[in-house]
Amino acid sequence: MTVTTPRVRLSPERRREQLLALGVQMLATCSLEELSIDRLAEAAGISRGLLYHYFGGKQGFYEAVVQRAADDLYAQTAPPADGEQLERLMASIAAYVDYVAANQAGYRSLVRAAAGGNEALRAIYDATFNALCDRFFAEDPDGQMLPDTPAVRALVRAWQAMAEDLTLTWCADPEVMTRDDLLEVLVGSLPAMIDLL
Amino acid sequence: MTVTTPRVRLSPERRREQLLALGVQMLATCSLEELSIDRLAEAAGISRGLLYHYFGGKQGFYEAVVQRAADDLYAQTAPPADGEQLERLMASIAAYVDYVAANQAGYRSLVRAAAGGNEALRAIYDATFNALCDRFFAEDPDGQMLPDTPAVRALVRAWQAMAEDLTLTWCADPEVMTRDDLLEVLVGSLPAMIDLL
Repeated sequence: MTVTTPRVRLSPERRREQLLALGVQMLATCSLEELSIDRLAEAAGISRGLLYHYFGGKQGFYEAVVQRAADDLYAQTAPPADGEQLERLMASIAAYVDYVAANQAGYRSLVRAAAGGNEALRAIYDATFNALCDRFFAEDPDGQMLPDTPAVRALVRAWQAMAEDLTLTWCADPEVMTRDDLLEVLVGSLPAMIDLL
Repeated sequence: MTVTTPRVRLSPERRREQLLALGVQMLATCSLEELSIDRLAEAAGISRGLLYHYFGGKQGFYEAVVQRAADDLYAQTAPPADGEQLERLMASIAAYVDYVAANQAGYRSLVRAAAGGNEALRAIYDATFNALCDRFFAEDPDGQMLPDTPAVRALVRAWQAMAEDLTLTWCADPEVMTRDDLLEVLVGSLPAMIDLL
């Protein structure tokens, strides 16, 4: 007698959600290049062909998974509604550090793919960083956090590049500094840079 | 009567130098992908095959050109021997900004190639950034500029990522801030970050 994995019938929408969730989960510990379509299809109990059918091919699936991961990053780094501006900024940056630490492999491979000229992944990466940047210029009960000028926006983008580099360095070797020191540098360096203008 | 370009006979060493110089010159205004081997061979008055012969193929030629460009960057950003540490740092950073401004297309394509996983180009890029980083820890008549600890080295690397991003933003749109403001931010932000540790 052969025991087969029962193939549960899901609606197309729920099946798509399940595949995206599995993909995001795998991307936490493996790079885009290592994300095995075969293992994923097997885990979901469907064929590789059906997976392609849902996403219009392998590249379409990668893009959907990366977009979902980017949406998760954006949602998880939402600053809390209450508290002083600096406290809320600190909470948001701490959430960013924790997200990258928990999803290192996939995050690194996204940075690489975006920088390396994969246009679709670069667009997702850029849109996410622009959205994170925009938060510094959003209106809130305490007023705008930063003055919205081209120079300050350029500094925020450069600070984001710094924050990403330092966070990835720290994730690769947490001995290099404490998490508290990392957060102090990330939170404090942005106003310090703007004061230099 | 047909006029042909005379093919000057150069020693292999001088021919190699000529080809590298031409490649670096072209890389100032075009990306690695646009660097046309045909145009270059034509400008040098040799065949494409002979060019490949000197460098062991197209990838070998790219690597040699990028290595030469990286050596130029390192040489041109050497801090002056005399003056206060901060003045020398300012001069070195100003030279970096001017180098990137004069070689934007090639510099951008190197960043892209290195980040995108071309291992040989990434190795050249990393070695250059490590060498630039090392300057901050070199002994000089005024003593070491920065304490040589893993945490400070991590900050210097993150600051380099910030400096590269801000310099490229400024090169793409010099209206965003004055060159003086750019240099103030670049020079001042490193000690500000280290003070936060």
